[in-house]
Amino acid sequence: MKRKVAILGATGLVGQRLVQLLQSHPWFKVEVLAASERSAGKKYHAACNWILESEMPTDVGEMKLVNSDVRSVEKAGDVDIVFSSLPADAAGQIEEEFAKKFPVFSKASAHRLEEDVPLIIPEVNPDHLRLIPFQKKRRRWQGFISTDPNCSTIQLGITLKPLMPFNLKRVIVSSMQALSGAGYPGVASVDMVDNVLPYIPNEEEKIEVETLKILGDFKGSKVHPLNAIVSASCNRVSVKDGHMECVFVECEANPSVEEVRGAFEHFRGKPQELKLPSAPKNPILVRDEPNRPQPRFDRDAGKGMSVVVGRIRHDRALGIKYICLGHNTIRGAAGAALLSAELATQKGYV
Amino acid sequence: MKRKVAILGATGLVGQRLVQLLQSHPWFKVEVLAASERSAGKKYHAACNWILESEMPTDVGEMKLVNSDVRSVEKAGDVDIVFSSLPADAAGQIEEEFAKKFPVFSKASAHRLEEDVPLIIPEVNPDHLRLIPFQKKRRRWQGFISTDPNCSTIQLGITLKPLMPFNLKRVIVSSMQALSGAGYPGVASVDMVDNVLPYIPNEEEKIEVETLKILGDFKGSKVHPLNAIVSASCNRVSVKDGHMECVFVECEANPSVEEVRGAFEHFRGKPQELKLPSAPKNPILVRDEPNRPQPRFDRDAGKGMSVVVGRIRHDRALGIKYICLGHNTIRGAAGAALLSAELATQKGYV
Amino acid sequence: MKRKVAILGATGLVGQRLVQLLQSHPWFKVEVLAASERSAGKKYHAACNWILESEMPTDVGEMKLVNSDVRSVEKAGDVDIVFSSLPADAAGQIEEEFAKKFPVFSKASAHRLEEDVPLIIPEVNPDHLRLIPFQKKRRRWQGFISTDPNCSTIQLGITLKPLMPFNLKRVIVSSMQALSGAGYPGVASVDMVDNVLPYIPNEEEKIEVETLKILGDFKGSKVHPLNAIVSASCNRVSVKDGHMECVFVECEANPSVEEVRGAFEHFRGKPQELKLPSAPKNPILVRDEPNRPQPRFDRDAGKGMSVVVGRIRHDRALGIKYICLGHNTIRGAAGAALLSAELATQKGYV
Amino acid sequence: MKRKVAILGATGLVGQRLVQLLQSHPWFKVEVLAASERSAGKKYHAACNWILESEMPTDVGEMKLVNSDVRSVEKAGDVDIVFSSLPADAAGQIEEEFAKKFPVFSKASAHRLEEDVPLIIPEVNPDHLRLIPFQKKRRRWQGFISTDPNCSTIQLGITLKPLMPFNLKRVIVSSMQALSGAGYPGVASVDMVDNVLPYIPNEEEKIEVETLKILGDFKGSKVHPLNAIVSASCNRVSVKDGHMECVFVECEANPSVEEVRGAFEHFRGKPQELKLPSAPKNPILVRDEPNRPQPRFDRDAGKGMSVVVGRIRHDRALGIKYICLGHNTIRGAAGAALLSAELATQKGYV
Repeated sequence: MKRKVAILGATGLVGQRLVQLLQSHPWFKVEVLAASERSAGKKYHAACNWILESEMPTDVGEMKLVNSDVRSVEKAGDVDIVFSSLPADAAGQIEEEFAKKFPVFSKASAHRLEEDVPLIIPEVNPDHLRLIPFQKKRRRWQGFISTDPNCSTIQLGITLKPLMPFNLKRVIVSSMQALSGAGYPGVASVDMVDNVLPYIPNEEEKIEVETLKILGDFKGSKVHPLNAIVSASCNRVSVKDGHMECVFVECEANPSVEEVRGAFEHFRGKPQELKLPSAPKNPILVRDEPNRPQPRFDRDAGKGMSVVVGRIRHDRALGIKYICLGHNTIRGAAGAALLSAELATQKGYV
Repeated sequence: MKRKVAILGATGLVGQRLVQLLQSHPWFKVEVLAASERSAGKKYHAACNWILESEMPTDVGEMKLVNSDVRSVEKAGDVDIVFSSLPADAAGQIEEEFAKKFPVFSKASAHRLEEDVPLIIPEVNPDHLRLIPFQKKRRRWQGFISTDPNCSTIQLGITLKPLMPFNLKRVIVSSMQALSGAGYPGVASVDMVDNVLPYIPNEEEKIEVETLKILGDFKGSKVHPLNAIVSASCNRVSVKDGHMECVFVECEANPSVEEVRGAFEHFRGKPQELKLPSAPKNPILVRDEPNRPQPRFDRDAGKGMSVVVGRIRHDRALGIKYICLGHNTIRGAAGAALLSAELATQKGYV
Repeated sequence: MKRKVAILGATGLVGQRLVQLLQSHPWFKVEVLAASERSAGKKYHAACNWILESEMPTDVGEMKLVNSDVRSVEKAGDVDIVFSSLPADAAGQIEEEFAKKFPVFSKASAHRLEEDVPLIIPEVNPDHLRLIPFQKKRRRWQGFISTDPNCSTIQLGITLKPLMPFNLKRVIVSSMQALSGAGYPGVASVDMVDNVLPYIPNEEEKIEVETLKILGDFKGSKVHPLNAIVSASCNRVSVKDGHMECVFVECEANPSVEEVRGAFEHFRGKPQELKLPSAPKNPILVRDEPNRPQPRFDRDAGKGMSVVVGRIRHDRALGIKYICLGHNTIRGAAGAALLSAELATQKGYV
Repeated sequence: MKRKVAILGATGLVGQRLVQLLQSHPWFKVEVLAASERSAGKKYHAACNWILESEMPTDVGEMKLVNSDVRSVEKAGDVDIVFSSLPADAAGQIEEEFAKKFPVFSKASAHRLEEDVPLIIPEVNPDHLRLIPFQKKRRRWQGFISTDPNCSTIQLGITLKPLMPFNLKRVIVSSMQALSGAGYPGVASVDMVDNVLPYIPNEEEKIEVETLKILGDFKGSKVHPLNAIVSASCNRVSVKDGHMECVFVECEANPSVEEVRGAFEHFRGKPQELKLPSAPKNPILVRDEPNRPQPRFDRDAGKGMSVVVGRIRHDRALGIKYICLGHNTIRGAAGAALLSAELATQKGYV
């Protein structure tokens, strides 16, 4: 018996990826698709500008969209889990309404930094799910909200976790982010031709703050952010999928390139241990060619769930530098939400 | 009476820019165009795959290319100055032959790091030209070699110079470099579609080492490199012209954003003081919009000779971060060579 | 004394080009900028996402936008001429209101095919302006509406006019159109990466019908469309500016390639004869290289007002084939409107 | 027992696709990889700049390349079939040498138009393989040469075949071709940014002539080309894979849009009938959305072996127009060679 899933924001880019990834999921099935009022009542295929290369699943295409409120969703089906990929401003209140009754796994930024809300990368901080009982109790909810970090934070966080034993002090990251990260329609094509945009609103702040919460310690009933520094400079480039990040890292233990390479290569987390359905075999794949990773070649590694790392080398300034690449709408969004829900399910929170 | 110029490597991308910029130069005129043996004997318009948007000057198009050796060049005209944009491997020996008789201004990397060879950014280290008499004496040459830094180094160096009073300690730079920086044909188009290349051979080393020589002190008969650290991570993106750099800087004096902004804005160098023909009014232009500089909009600032800086902001990790953009084949190559030659001419070295 | 101009739709792509081209116009000056209610009251620089490479003229940037209705415009200034680059659906009624009092030169498609409305390419059918008195009389307007064709039609029409003496029978055109033709924000960047869109809504119909009206005869009080066939297949490609068209033409007189080349090269129209300020020296520029025209190299020919033709060759199927390229927001839009207004002014209609 | 295959030109783009497609082929296995002298002796992974998204098969990567001559290939293995993707100029003589002993399936243009050489699209003209015995006899060869058409011809030919019953008279085609069609490195990236190239050397002639041979009748010992007219205008656009063609067709029987749509949809050929391993279920897939096919979405249809057709509509000029898209390095090259070899094998020619 599969658990029944509702997707809020089903017509957006992340919603589409969720539909795609849930198509033959062993544990979950799509039960309700919700979107804005404008789309409610229409069939999914009619309301959704599907932009993925694989075809829209025909049965899902025939489903009727409902409005993103609790009553409409409840009326449309018997739901066990709610995935939210609502826009940040809408997400705040709507997700709280749903969390009164349902486990909500959210890609939206609205609740990420609230003290009792887990901000989860399943390979990195699975124990932060232990915030859930405190959250439910404090808010008197039957359900809860669990959030996924920003796309560019997730891939960075996955590569920083194996460096934690070397005592992480400072991280500088400069990103070249894909167009799909801006949602749909996102950036105008006329702005991207022969161009780079050196600014993505709020993105640097998200990386700088979220990373420290994710790498923080769960103690008592709280997460204590990591005592370290992260600084980011974020750019948009003309690539469809796959965020690239140039990372410079300072660790107190000053590890060698070989030690860092080994830490990346052997890194495994709970999802691998528990063999969760969406878990890639390797959370991190190391490439030794001088010119990898590259978005077009590496974004689909591990079905889009592996982060690909390359060019690990000595850094004169901070000690170590490397490049990492992650598929921003799979590992950075829809796949992240799925993996979080799988972990929470396996751990008994759902 | 204009000085007569020979261009070695005249058919390449930098050679073409030199031809374009010399078209109505008040001090210099094109006298001899030299290229590889394959092209020698052909008319310039027939041998050169002109890729600039402005039309090839018709008179230059009719000039006959000669081989890049001293005898052929001397036979073809009465030359005062030699510009070299030869490939690095060819440049080493050929430039030395020419330097026995001529002042050689070189864009090639071959001689940049030799102790008695100036590596010049006219606004930054004009006094390094004082290496020339020592070089001539030591090598027993009538002429000399003066070099321009790598394109991505030049724009970085220009922005670091005004920060020198704050006592520069560490610089981290991550670049997104234009296709024209790879010469012609350079990168295959099939490699760049929907992609970013995180590697440019030797580029990071050049930035890391050249910058310190440029910012160094001329004392006695030598340049003493700056005692600081520069670290780079270089990427190729699908932009025609204009290198973008995300720069993170640590200064001992820990200047405020306003102090840094002021230092950039008020920076002027010898070329501005001397009103050299190719000098832009402002070596650095500061943009205050959140999303500038952008290659397509800002690369032509100051006729391609100004470096455009934006997003100057506090950096948690090192103190200050900003974005800079320079036109890689003008300020980063042909214009750099011209400005160096103008400075050397004005200073009496030519 | 310059005539005072109001621009309706001033913040859009075509509006921006109009502002740019009017910056130092000898006959016209910007007096009023009008836009949608959302922008009215704001300064131009605050409301307009300026996407041209040249800087926004500072004085225009300080002008306050007014709403696009007659009363607001009249209150804002003493206007002689109205340029409209409103969206097609809004244009219908608003332009009629303005035409009751003002000469309106419109880029919108709303009125193009009305029997008493001139659809003008100044080099092609200047005599169609003679519809104006009939229009004014019939509609009892003090002003009038004169329209410019669709961007892809204009460049085609200019190249077909010199072929009229050969008795044009059939034209097949396949276009590769630039992103700026879709306005702003236009096409989503994520849709264009590594892609071509083989469809532009209504574009083919516009080319097929408008061309025949333009090439038609003004007789009595009417324009009789040309008795010929035009068929189009329109595509969007990832180019910023400059529409490319592959044209196949059948003429009864079956001209040779040389005759066609000569007809293109020697073609001049009223704007050239009258030396109108925006008239290019050559309406058509012929390139003989095998691989021209190309958008990046040729779109700015004649300050964006020349159509560049290349690859004129024998066609097995229809007789003649060639490629033509025009700058879609200059010759195809803002420049077209200006040139029409200049012609009408010179002819005494304004 | 699988037949053993040698690939001439194994390191090129088409060679790479062949390696990829042969990886788990039920009838054929890679036995020998041959390349130019420069690469001979190196391991495949060391000599080949692999540009496909899927990883190079590790066993093939370890194979040693041999020179592209008969003796070297024979020495390296016991070969049953030779695939040639040599450059046109090299192919002429080398293929003839191989054909003395082996069945050669060639993607090169060298022999395509020779009277006794089949030019095969398996779904279109399988009976042209009957030229083989005449070729062998006439040339006194044990083996033979069978050729595949140019990539842009194949997809056009497949869509024209089902229109043959309507009595094809005239075809006009305008193409937008992918970068991979130019081989590697092919077009320089700096030439393609913000640009379209309206010229591909020899491409138009290939489409115009090859199409008629393919659609011709085999009678007696000869192929009689179709008595019709094909005219092409070929362009290069910034797309990685997938050629788009705008096709205008005149048929004597003047079929309706519905008849044409039906003919496309129901078209099947010998490969489908014989269930050849590389045969797609549908040689032609019809899309009814107004904006399809698009390269990024449709090029992989039928594992890259289906041609996708859309926008079938009435044409004022010739009767019918439509868009077709094919994967140029699969259906247009490596997959074409494979399917031809499968057909020839099944028919007993190998």
